[in-house]
This record gives sequence, C-alpha cells and structure tokens, in this order.
Amino acid sequence: MTTTADQITAATGDTTLPASAPSRPSRTSPAGGPRIDVTALHQALLGRWPTWRAKARAHAAEPRFWKDDSLPMAEHRERVLGQVKMLAADPEHQVWLAYPKRLGGQDSPGANLAGFEELAIGDPSLQIKAGVQFGLFGSAIWQLGTPEQQDRWLPGAMDVSVPGAFAMTEKGHGSDVASLATTATYDAEAGEFVINTPFRGAWKDFLGNAAKDGLAATVFARLITRGPGETQDTDYGVHCFYVPIRDEAGEFLPGVGGEDDGLKGGLNGIDNGSLWFDHVRVPRENLLARYGQVAADGTYTSPIASPGRRFFTMLGALVQGRVSLDGAAGSATRIGLAIAVRYAEQRRQFAGAAPDEEVTLLDYATHRRRLIPLVAETYALHYAHERLLDMFDDVFSGRNDTEQTRADLETMAAAMKGTSTTFALEALQECRVACGGAGFITENRIVSLRADMDVYATFEGDNTILLQLVAKRLVGDYGKDLGRQVKTAQGKARYVAGRAADVALHRFPLRRAAQAVADVTRPDSGAVFDVALQRALLTERVAAKVEALALGLRPAQKADPAEAQRIFDRHQVALIDVARSHAELVRWDLFTEAVASTKDAGTAVVLGWLRDEYALTVIRRDLGWFVANGRLTGSRARALDGELDALERRLRPHLLDLVDAWGLGDDHLRAVIATGVEQERQDEARAYYAAQRAAGTLPTKEKRGR
Amino acid sequence: MTTTADQITAATGDTTLPASAPSRPSRTSPAGGPRIDVTALHQALLGRWPTWRAKARAHAAEPRFWKDDSLPMAEHRERVLGQVKMLAADPEHQVWLAYPKRLGGQDSPGANLAGFEELAIGDPSLQIKAGVQFGLFGSAIWQLGTPEQQDRWLPGAMDVSVPGAFAMTEKGHGSDVASLATTATYDAEAGEFVINTPFRGAWKDFLGNAAKDGLAATVFARLITRGPGETQDTDYGVHCFYVPIRDEAGEFLPGVGGEDDGLKGGLNGIDNGSLWFDHVRVPRENLLARYGQVAADGTYTSPIASPGRRFFTMLGALVQGRVSLDGAAGSATRIGLAIAVRYAEQRRQFAGAAPDEEVTLLDYATHRRRLIPLVAETYALHYAHERLLDMFDDVFSGRNDTEQTRADLETMAAAMKGTSTTFALEALQECRVACGGAGFITENRIVSLRADMDVYATFEGDNTILLQLVAKRLVGDYGKDLGRQVKTAQGKARYVAGRAADVALHRFPLRRAAQAVADVTRPDSGAVFDVALQRALLTERVAAKVEALALGLRPAQKADPAEAQRIFDRHQVALIDVARSHAELVRWDLFTEAVASTKDAGTAVVLGWLRDEYALTVIRRDLGWFVANGRLTGSRARALDGELDALERRLRPHLLDLVDAWGLGDDHLRAVIATGVEQERQDEARAYYAAQRAAGTLPTKEKRGR
Repeated sequence: MTTTADQITAATGDTTLPASAPSRPSRTSPAGGPRIDVTALHQALLGRWPTWRAKARAHAAEPRFWKDDSLPMAEHRERVLGQVKMLAADPEHQVWLAYPKRLGGQDSPGANLAGFEELAIGDPSLQIKAGVQFGLFGSAIWQLGTPEQQDRWLPGAMDVSVPGAFAMTEKGHGSDVASLATTATYDAEAGEFVINTPFRGAWKDFLGNAAKDGLAATVFARLITRGPGETQDTDYGVHCFYVPIRDEAGEFLPGVGGEDDGLKGGLNGIDNGSLWFDHVRVPRENLLARYGQVAADGTYTSPIASPGRRFFTMLGALVQGRVSLDGAAGSATRIGLAIAVRYAEQRRQFAGAAPDEEVTLLDYATHRRRLIPLVAETYALHYAHERLLDMFDDVFSGRNDTEQTRADLETMAAAMKGTSTTFALEALQECRVACGGAGFITENRIVSLRADMDVYATFEGDNTILLQLVAKRLVGDYGKDLGRQVKTAQGKARYVAGRAADVALHRFPLRRAAQAVADVTRPDSGAVFDVALQRALLTERVAAKVEALALGLRPAQKADPAEAQRIFDRHQVALIDVARSHAELVRWDLFTEAVASTKDAGTAVVLGWLRDEYALTVIRRDLGWFVANGRLTGSRARALDGELDALERRLRPHLLDLVDAWGLGDDHLRAVIATGVEQERQDEARAYYAAQRAAGTLPTKEKRGR
Repeated sequence: MTTTADQITAATGDTTLPASAPSRPSRTSPAGGPRIDVTALHQALLGRWPTWRAKARAHAAEPRFWKDDSLPMAEHRERVLGQVKMLAADPEHQVWLAYPKRLGGQDSPGANLAGFEELAIGDPSLQIKAGVQFGLFGSAIWQLGTPEQQDRWLPGAMDVSVPGAFAMTEKGHGSDVASLATTATYDAEAGEFVINTPFRGAWKDFLGNAAKDGLAATVFARLITRGPGETQDTDYGVHCFYVPIRDEAGEFLPGVGGEDDGLKGGLNGIDNGSLWFDHVRVPRENLLARYGQVAADGTYTSPIASPGRRFFTMLGALVQGRVSLDGAAGSATRIGLAIAVRYAEQRRQFAGAAPDEEVTLLDYATHRRRLIPLVAETYALHYAHERLLDMFDDVFSGRNDTEQTRADLETMAAAMKGTSTTFALEALQECRVACGGAGFITENRIVSLRADMDVYATFEGDNTILLQLVAKRLVGDYGKDLGRQVKTAQGKARYVAGRAADVALHRFPLRRAAQAVADVTRPDSGAVFDVALQRALLTERVAAKVEALALGLRPAQKADPAEAQRIFDRHQVALIDVARSHAELVRWDLFTEAVASTKDAGTAVVLGWLRDEYALTVIRRDLGWFVANGRLTGSRARALDGELDALERRLRPHLLDLVDAWGLGDDHLRAVIATGVEQERQDEARAYYAAQRAAGTLPTKEKRGR
C-alpha cells in the first residue's frame, strides 16, 4: 500500500448525514397553488434502504472520496485505489452488505447497491473500481464459486489485499461472451488447468485492475477436458477460473502479460489494461465450480445439463453490474441537472435595456424545454430503478429466486441500463450546453462527470445488445403466450399491459390507481392528453410494435439460415425501437404508481404534472409512429407542443423544489456556478446600476441619428 | 519563447501532399452496379481552393501539429503556442491569406478559412488558439481599425510577437454582447479612455490567451463620452479598444487583473481566462475607429448613424469565426466517421458458432443505421459549408459586399454553425459508441476529439441564440415580402423555396436540376420517396412553419411589452424548430445541386442515394409533423423505415469509398483501431482455427444433456 493511500485511509469514516441535506419547505412555489413538501419527497426518494443510501451519500460528500480533476492519470489511479481500500476498511462494513451472513455479510444485496450507486457522486472512477473489486471480482468468487472457494478467496478480495481483475471481455469479442476464445484445457496428469490465449483477439482487454494493481483475476475461458476413455477433447463452453497474475512486488507471474490501456475518455482513476496467458497452469481447484466441475480424472459434471442454460445462469449471476449502472446513471444525471437548474434559476441573459430586470434563463421557453423534460425523465428513471432494486434484492437475497423472477430481473435490468446510461449522457450534455461556456469549465463539474459516464453506455453489455435482448424476450413471450391464447386486438393490448406489469412486479391494480391519480392531478383538466390517454397510447404502442415484429419475424422460423438472417436484419432496427418503447412504458407505469402512493396532496399534484411531462415527452419523441399508425389524430398531435409548453410553465416554479428533493448539497454538486455566485454577481450588478441611477451618473443612451 | 516551442519551430514546414492522400479506385463497390470514382470525388470535395485546403491538411498530418494527449495542461498550452508561432513563421504565409494586399495578404478570405478549418485535424486547440490570434484579435484590428491602426498593430498580431486576447464575452452576459457592462469613458483633459470593469459580472471571461500568453487585448466596452457643451455623459454602445495587458515579462500591467479558467472539458491547449480592468487608461487613438471615433474634445462621430445598425455591423465583421467553426465541425466529424467506418468494415461480432464467418459490424442493420445517416449528413454539411465559404469570400473580398449579401451571409452562417456544431457532437458520440470500449480509449482519438469540439456548440454564439436569429430573419422576411405579395398557398411554398435558393445563392434552376438527378439516380425506382417528393416535403415544411409562426407572432406587434413577451415565449420553441428545418432544406438543396453537377455517372448515382438517405433521415426526425400536418399519409410514413433500411443496404458497399473520398490518411486519423490492426487480429484468429481444424485438434462442442 502506498503512502498516499495510507494517508487517506488514516482519515476516519464519518457517516453522519451531510449538513447540506435538505430539510426545508418549498422555496419557489407560488402562493395558492399546490406545493411540494420537499422534506417528505426527499425522504420518499431515499427509497427502500434510506439509511444505507443516506450513509453512502454522506460518504460521497466527504472530500477524501471526491474526484480531483487536477491529478494526472498515475496519481488519480493511486488516489482511487486508496479510496477503495478506505471503503473496505470502513467500520460499518458496507462493502459486505450483499454477502450472506455465513461470510460476514447481511444478505442485503439491494441495500448494498442502493449505497454503491451513490459512490458515483464522489468519483465515478471510485464507483467502477469498487465495482470491479467487490461487485465483479468478488461477486464472481461468491456467485460462481463453491463455499470452500468463497472461504479461500473472498477475504482477500473484500479487504483489497488482493486487488483483482474481472477478465471476461476480449479484444475480439466485446459483449459477445459466448464467442470468447481463451482456453482452459484440463491436464489430468498434472491435475491442472492450462490457461491460454491463442491469438491477439483473445487478449482480455479493458479490465480494471489489470494494468497495475491486480494480483489475481477471475478469468473466463472455454473449459476443455477429456474424460477417461474419451478420444477427443470436448469444449464445455465458458467457465470462470481464479488465476493469480502478479507477485507481491507487482510483477507479472511467469506466462502472464498485458498492456496498459492508458488514457481514456474518462474514468482515468482506474488502471484498465489487457491480459494474456501463455499456457499458465492453475490447480484444478481454481475452476469456480458452482455450475460446473471437473473431476481429477477429467470428467466434467454440472448441475445444469443444458450448456445454453448453464451459460446464461453464470452470466445472470452477474446482473448486479447492470442494476448498479442504472442507479449510477441516475446519480450522475441528478448532479448535472441540479447544477443546471440552480444556475438557470439565477442566471439572467438578454435583459436588454433594463439590466436589473428579473428575466432568468428559466423564463425562456427554450430553456424550460431543455431542462424540464430531463428532470421528468430523471424522476421516471428513479422510480423504475427503485423497482429494479426490489427485484434484484428479491432474487439475490434468495427470497424469491425462481427461473421466472431471474429472467424478469435480467430483462428489466437490460431495459433500464440499456436506456438510462444513454439518457445520462444526453442529459449531461444538455446540462453542459444549458450552462454555456461556464458549463465547459471543469470546476463546474458537468464535463468531468459526462466524460466519466461515457463508457457506461457500452460496458456491462453494449446498450444496443441489451435492448435486443429485451426485444427478443418481448417477442418471444408474445409468440409463446399470446399466439395461443389471445385473438382479439383488445385482448392483445391487455396482454401487453399485463406483461409490463409483470415485469415491473406490480402489486396493486395499476389501471385503477392511474385513474385515481388522474382525478387528483387534473382538476383544471380539459387537457388533451390525460392520464388515461397516456396509458392507452404507451401501452398500445408496445402491443402494436411487438405484434408487428412477431408477425414480421415469423417466416424466419422456417427459412434457411441465410434467409433467416436476412429477415432478422430487416427487423433489427425495429427490435431496438420496441425495447425502448417498452422501457418507457415500464417507467411511466412506475412513475404513475409513485404519484398514486404519494400522501401529501400538493406533492402528488406536482409529481402528476411531472409524470404528464414525461408522458408527453415520450409521445413527442415517437409522434410519427402514433399519427402514422392511427393512434393519434393530426389535431391532437398538433396540440402536443402547446400542452408541453403549458406544462412546463406550470412546473417551472416547482423546478427548484423537485431538484432540491434529491438531497444534493454543495458538497455533492461541487460546481462553482451552483453555489450562488451567479446570484451574488447579479445582485452586485443591480446594486451598481441602482447606485448610478440614484447619483444621476448613469450615462444616457445615444439617440439615433445624432 | 520556450525551448519546446523553439524545438518544434526548428522543424521545417513540409507542405507536400501527404503520402496517405487517397488516389485509388473504389475498393468495395460490387461488380455490375455503379461505382464511385474515389479520386475524382476526393478532388471535388477539396472545393474551390483545393491547393490551400490540401496544404493545410498536409500540415495537419505533420507530427509537430498533432495533439499530444499525454501532456498535462501547462505543457499542452506551451506546445500549442509554439504551433501557432510555427504557423505564423510558415514561409507560405497562409495566416495572411485573408488580409488585403496592402497589408501583405492576398485578399482571399475564403481560401484562408478553407485551410484554417483543417487545423482542427491536427489539434482543435491549435485551430482555436490560431483563430483567437489571427481570426479574432487580428481580425478585430483589421475589420474594426483604421488603416493607421492596422499598420501599427497587425504585424505584432500576425507574427505572434504580441499574443492577443479577444475580450468580448463577460461572465454576466455570454452571447448577449449588447448588454455588456465594461465601460470605456473618455477623459478629454487627458485625451485618454478609461477602461473599467464595474462589477464581477462584467469581468471578461473564457478568453483564449488571457490566462497566460496575451500581451494585449481587443476589449469590447461601452463607449461613454461627453461632447463640448454637453452636461451629461452619453453611452454610445459597444466599441472595441486595443488595450495592452501584460509587460514583456508576462506580468499584468497596473490596473489589469484576471484569473485562469483552469481545466476545461477540452481545448486544454488554450489558456482561457478572465480579465478585469480597474480604471486602466489608454490613449484616445486606441479606440478601433472604423465605425466610430471620438475627437480630442470628446465629440463622437460615426459613419453609421443608427446605433443598432452600427452595433450589428461591428459584430458582423466577425462572422468568419462562425463560418470557420462550421468548417471545423465538418473536419472533426469526418475524422470520427472515418475511424468508425474503417473499424466497422473489419470488426466482427457475434459470429457465434462459426468464428471465421464474414459478419462485420456493417452487416448489422443497427450498425448501418448508426453510421450511414451520419455519413449522409456529413456530406450535406460539406456542400452547404462550401457554399457558405463562397458567400463569405464574396463579401469579405469586397467582390459582392452589400447590405443584402452581408445579411444573407450572417443568416447562413448562423443556420449552419448553429446546427453543424451540435451535429458534430452527436456524430462523434455515435462513433465512439459504435466502436465500443475501444472507442473510449484515447489512443483511438474519438473521445479526445469530441471533448475538444464540445464548446463549439456554445461559443461564437450559442447555437440556440443563433437559430433564433435565423428564425427571426425568416419570419421577418415572410412578413415583409410575403404579406403584401403572395396570397395563395402554392405561391407561399414557391416563395419559401425561392427564399432558400436566395440564401444559398443558387445560380441555376434548382427544380429542373433536381428532377434530372432523380431521373438519373433512380432507374430502379418505384421508390416511395423520390426526389420530387423530398423537395416538396422539405420546402413545404419550412413554408408552413414560417407561416404559422408569422401568424402566431402577429398579435405581439400591438401588445404591451409583457404580453408581447408572453406571445413570443409561446413560440420560442417553434422558432428554433423552424430554423433547423430551414438549415436542413438549404443543405438538401445544395447536396442535390452537387449531385447534379457530378460528372462521373457512377459517382452521381451513389451520391444521389446518399442524398436520399439524408432526406429520409431528415424527414424521419420530424415525421410527426409531416403526418400530423397532412404532408404524408400514414402508409407512406410507415414505409419510411423500410426505405431507409433498403437505402442503407444499397449504400453499404460504397461506404468505405465515401469515407475514403475525404482524403484522410492514417496521419490524419491517428486512431489505432483504424489502421487495420483489427483485420490483422481477425486474420490471425481465422488462421488459428483453420490450423486447428486441419490438425483435428479443435475440441468438439459439448452435447446437450450429457
């Protein structure tokens, strides 16, 4: 351990709530109308594990966990390694939360992730480096290993005495894990596996901890063995092996090599690199053997007979990465939006002849249109993520771990991560631009955060691939269930609505709830897009798109492979599209459910408007589909923009409350422009002009034509 | 000058064409069909000043002008300053190209920009630092100064013995130059102007050369003076002053101060900073006096009587910044796309059971949908930018400098820069994601380039503001011309079409040309969206939107200011929208014109398809509008995606040719993944499996259920 890390570790872990956590009434909402109870909303947004989330958020506000943008790569890496060790040394043991009690954990995987995703507020490099160590390297040992293997290797992983790489991705195979080419060939005579990288495309790459810190790696390789009496080797597909890679001095062990990936677009606090193995031998016991083992004589056995199902079971055990990235996308987006909204509440522009006029950026329709849909979508993301955490906790705590709940969890995680991490980038970019030149200065945080979040869209499953998985599931379910059960169009729509509810594990009748909300939130209605219409539009869209796809893809079942590929190719863009529509429906559902369960009436009204804003934003993105497919009349479609404008005017005075309810203080935002300096500058300017005017020294304006 | 810069300067300026410039036949187009003449297309794309553009591009390929991503900020700044000095010292004198012959220039502003925008290929920091020095600081002296002032200050600006800041933007006022608050008050007794920063919001900020290198600045301030016999000061609005800010030792002169903006999201080779002035005195002669002067006794005179027109004339003199950013956006986008397309041509993914199968990324419909619309739009950008350069050259060379041509140029520049710089960011991000994890590694260039381009969207006029200017012009023209002249709907459409043609300075009958192209390019037509329909849709869209806005805004003319503001606010989002539609129409027009003037038949056919791709992409983005407003039937709208897919399949074999025609070699791209390493890795993997198969050592796959 280095001096730097030691020094940092010496600081004590303060887990009290930060002083900046909001506990205040609404400060912007107009008299007379509905008001948000900011404190209560903040509490509600802390979710199912408020204590652990609040603790982690308080950690992220401690300077020792902050990103230091001034550090060169090497020093940044050092700092982040030190931070990861501080997490491990924390007396509250948060990194162990997810693990079984047998191992010293608390069987609380949901609480663990709720806290983990807050680390991105400190430094996304810290989140991802901790994720590699505790969530990938550690989890591989836990999820894929036997109890004996857990006992042997988990302590080193969890106290970071053995920093580890998660060696799955290969240069040549990216998200295509099934095709990876590294081999682990069993040598029965020696009782060892021989790990080998047959060509450059099989180098493991982009692995955190590989370039510098890693002493071991969980290496995914094709398990090849030959049982007694067999005449040929058999490839049992991808399995995971525990492989030491460096000695105590940090030098590669014999046969192991690799390169440093060097500078990246962000996350430079992580030492990503590549690894290769030249016939590296590990004992037979280093195969993480929960889902497949090789006897001393070379006989392969597995509790899961089907190679495909075994493969997906092993991968599925690692779904928590996707769940946590969905959460981190929300954390980062909230930071960016809180900065942009605070600034836009103070910044004045084009005040023109009267420089002390009260025209802030949010008084411009274009600025509202920039930020308010993003705030709405961020709320939608949040409620869906909370449900995703529930589902994850149910499965991984073992409380409700069935093939069906696992499959639902994986689909939900793919749909959410596959859209939220892309959304985070778009939202942060819009925040950056909405802050003008100031948004481009690193001290105002947004550019640094956006750079770090960039890779979230392609790691732990490229978003395009993830959305294809979602779509295939939707179409597959349609084929299985609907094809034989439901014949009418109405029945199909009901089916899909029910399906969305399944996936989101709804626990009370959604339709009735939504209706109740509509009654509450639109007393002044006459609105063209009421909640029933929103629901009908978003549900039928998924239903119609899934059905069209199922029909379009049906001929592929009887076609030869080349023709089947052609048919699939012609529907591939539509597959991605339907997955996005599905994700939006799920989010709308859960947002609506959250509105319905909000007790404070004023808060419920404003959240209802925000849900409407989300719905209209989503409908607007796909307006062509709705009109071209007869779901919306032209006149209704033409009214959409006016409705959105009106909603945004209505939401504008509540915007700061909505952002404050996220509970992000100055120590979380760490952006100079969000601290009130702009207001001070405005006040100073106003005072200057007032004094000049009072003294009669303000120059007169030139008159035309003199 | 530092050692580093000296060392760099010591290298000679090699202006021969780079070896990597393409001069090769099509390498991917299928036999039988149309083929692109890559060499001829490359020549055509070099545009009106091929020699200067090729020279600048060759410069950008020289290592001494490359961005070095490994440098910390201070060293990067040093390197870029050295590069700017090398440009100034270049024996071919390119930095002087735009200037009048009287000053040693060549009266060729278009050629100057054609070369200048290529510098972004070397390092965008170099482009912008050079732009600050020669294009803003130097141009302010040239455009706003008298001949005597040019003689006095231009040599130091152009040989970089006096690095200069362009001190326009203030912390409190961003793009709102008319509101800036720095004052320059004339003291008749002393014969001096007193430059003063009255409050913190009036600090000049985000200025290149301000933090470290600048010895002088062209400072924009409100000119305040009192003529003989007058009893009160008069504010004559914003003027520009030449103000020394540092001594030879680099220390601020008395009364001048400022701060370093520090790290930014990109462009860290430029020393951006803020400046303030505490009653700093400069001689009366330091007012750049072309458009306004103050006599010794304090009397103000100007050749332009109207304060508003004078202000816009002064700002208009600086339009070249926007023109050049539009060009640089194209340069950067081409780099990103060339990398992503080269990689996608080689990269294989999800080959599944047959790892030596020929399935590259471009064989996936989703990947084609990612990249091909971007290539099409980049071509559209290019042709429009060439026209913008023409217009700029006409005005600034004096050949056709009228109020009308200036206004047209400014509108065109605002429409192009206001959309292309945003597009560049979106395109580069898509390229990054399309390259997966490899796209995130700095050695593959895209993330670095995107970071540098980020601020292009908000400097030299925030894009939202620019698009509002365009829309106001469109609506204003409609009110002026159309209101009294054209009454029928058909006439209105014709009017708007003509207007687009005006703005783009068409020189031959567009409609006929487009028709001819349609006949040539769609022999296999039956296409739903032929060129006539494209033209009708894009033209009528602008016509209808402008008309709706004009009608909607009309009541504001007779309303009180608050009500007028409300009316304006309700149409602000639509204003931005119509400006985007207008920019797309102009680009489509000029793309179509370019297709028509392409001599090689095969090239014309493929470019025609690419123009179709652009049109359909544009229509798809706004599909809701077209259907909701009765411009497209539902069935036609539903056919759009299929047409796009088909076009993309047709364009796929030509994609590498289209990218190669940009003439970017390895020394321009400087991305490891674009050099062919991926192909080598693929070949190596294939050879490995082939050898295993031949030797009978490839393990058999596990059979289900053993």
